[in-house]
Amino acid sequence: MRMRKKPWAKDMIQQRTDCVISDPATLKGDWSSFGYDIIVVEVGAGKGDYWIGMGNKNPEELWIAVEKNIDASAIALKKSINHTKENMKFIVGDVDKIDLWFEDNEVDRIHLNFSDPWPKKAHTKRRLTYDTFLNKYQKVLKKDGCIIMKTDNAKLFEYSLVTFSENKWFLKEVSVDFRRETHDEDVITEYENNFMQLDQPIYRAIFQVPTGEIND
Amino acid sequence: MRMRKKPWAKDMIQQRTDCVISDPATLKGDWSSFGYDIIVVEVGAGKGDYWIGMGNKNPEELWIAVEKNIDASAIALKKSINHTKENMKFIVGDVDKIDLWFEDNEVDRIHLNFSDPWPKKAHTKRRLTYDTFLNKYQKVLKKDGCIIMKTDNAKLFEYSLVTFSENKWFLKEVSVDFRRETHDEDVITEYENNFMQLDQPIYRAIFQVPTGEIND
Repeated sequence: MRMRKKPWAKDMIQQRTDCVISDPATLKGDWSSFGYDIIVVEVGAGKGDYWIGMGNKNPEELWIAVEKNIDASAIALKKSINHTKENMKFIVGDVDKIDLWFEDNEVDRIHLNFSDPWPKKAHTKRRLTYDTFLNKYQKVLKKDGCIIMKTDNAKLFEYSLVTFSENKWFLKEVSVDFRRETHDEDVITEYENNFMQLDQPIYRAIFQVPTGEIND
Repeated sequence: MRMRKKPWAKDMIQQRTDCVISDPATLKGDWSSFGYDIIVVEVGAGKGDYWIGMGNKNPEELWIAVEKNIDASAIALKKSINHTKENMKFIVGDVDKIDLWFEDNEVDRIHLNFSDPWPKKAHTKRRLTYDTFLNKYQKVLKKDGCIIMKTDNAKLFEYSLVTFSENKWFLKEVSVDFRRETHDEDVITEYENNFMQLDQPIYRAIFQVPTGEIND
């Protein structure tokens, strides 16, 4: 994500103590203390539109956004000032550390919503569906947990389907044109809507945690 | 496939002794006697265009078409009269019997090319990627064998991706827009070309035989 530096970014992040979790590792194993039965993590939340929409739509679930880009995080936090329910938390940090923030089997669901496709082969390792990430997701997800991925990018989708399969995740649902049917349960962000207006298909898959051991 | 009765169908099938295998079970375990290292089966060959194209393009592989509809088979056999190489064989019969025709681990590759989508839920069991078929394919395929599936039908494709995953097949390659790139190795039939002209995506996947046991 290319983005201009926001000189006010750090201040915004510091001000939003109502939702920003500044030291998520201290909550490891203890996220249920917020009082929600379902713990959802959105990895790569970007400017926060999906998090804001879904967090507001699902007040019975704890929605934790993770975004490493400080400027994107600041935009998300600014946008959400009047739209942040108690069930919405934000981590400004690298998903690489997800297993330091969450205990094994602590998370119910991970969302990857329009992740950066990193199209160059040299950047494969940065894709949020690269092997090393899948292993960490598997660790923190409950045994019946799942990942819901949505993207406009055909190549990222294809890459991800194969990578999840190689890592023995099960494909529970898949759609090569998710908006073919109405899905009121799933928020459409402005970004997603742009692709829909151009009649481009939205790809979506639900992957279930593999039953075997994790290869660390 | 809806098709008018061809009164000449049976005669055509009987005449084409050069390629029609009238009793395939007698060849079980012995298909290599035709002298080819690679044994390929196209299941649901319809009017034969893909079989004719691919059989001619790959004279080093044994290409065996399977089609249960007598009229479609007759059309395929009429079309191919002057285009049948020695590596091309035809079975008029129900794929349900594939494990009676081929020995365990005898087949290198199975092609499912634009199979009938059987869209109604009540007809799920007729889809050529239904569980019972997958088990039979797995039986006759070599341990490093694979299935190459191509279709224009999004719902059949989605159904198949999930079914193969449930049955622990590995997804080796997948494309949600196969003709995005040039694939000289893969013949484009008139039928496929119709979809391409309408700018509709062609879906394609390669599934690898699961490593575990077969659940009979």
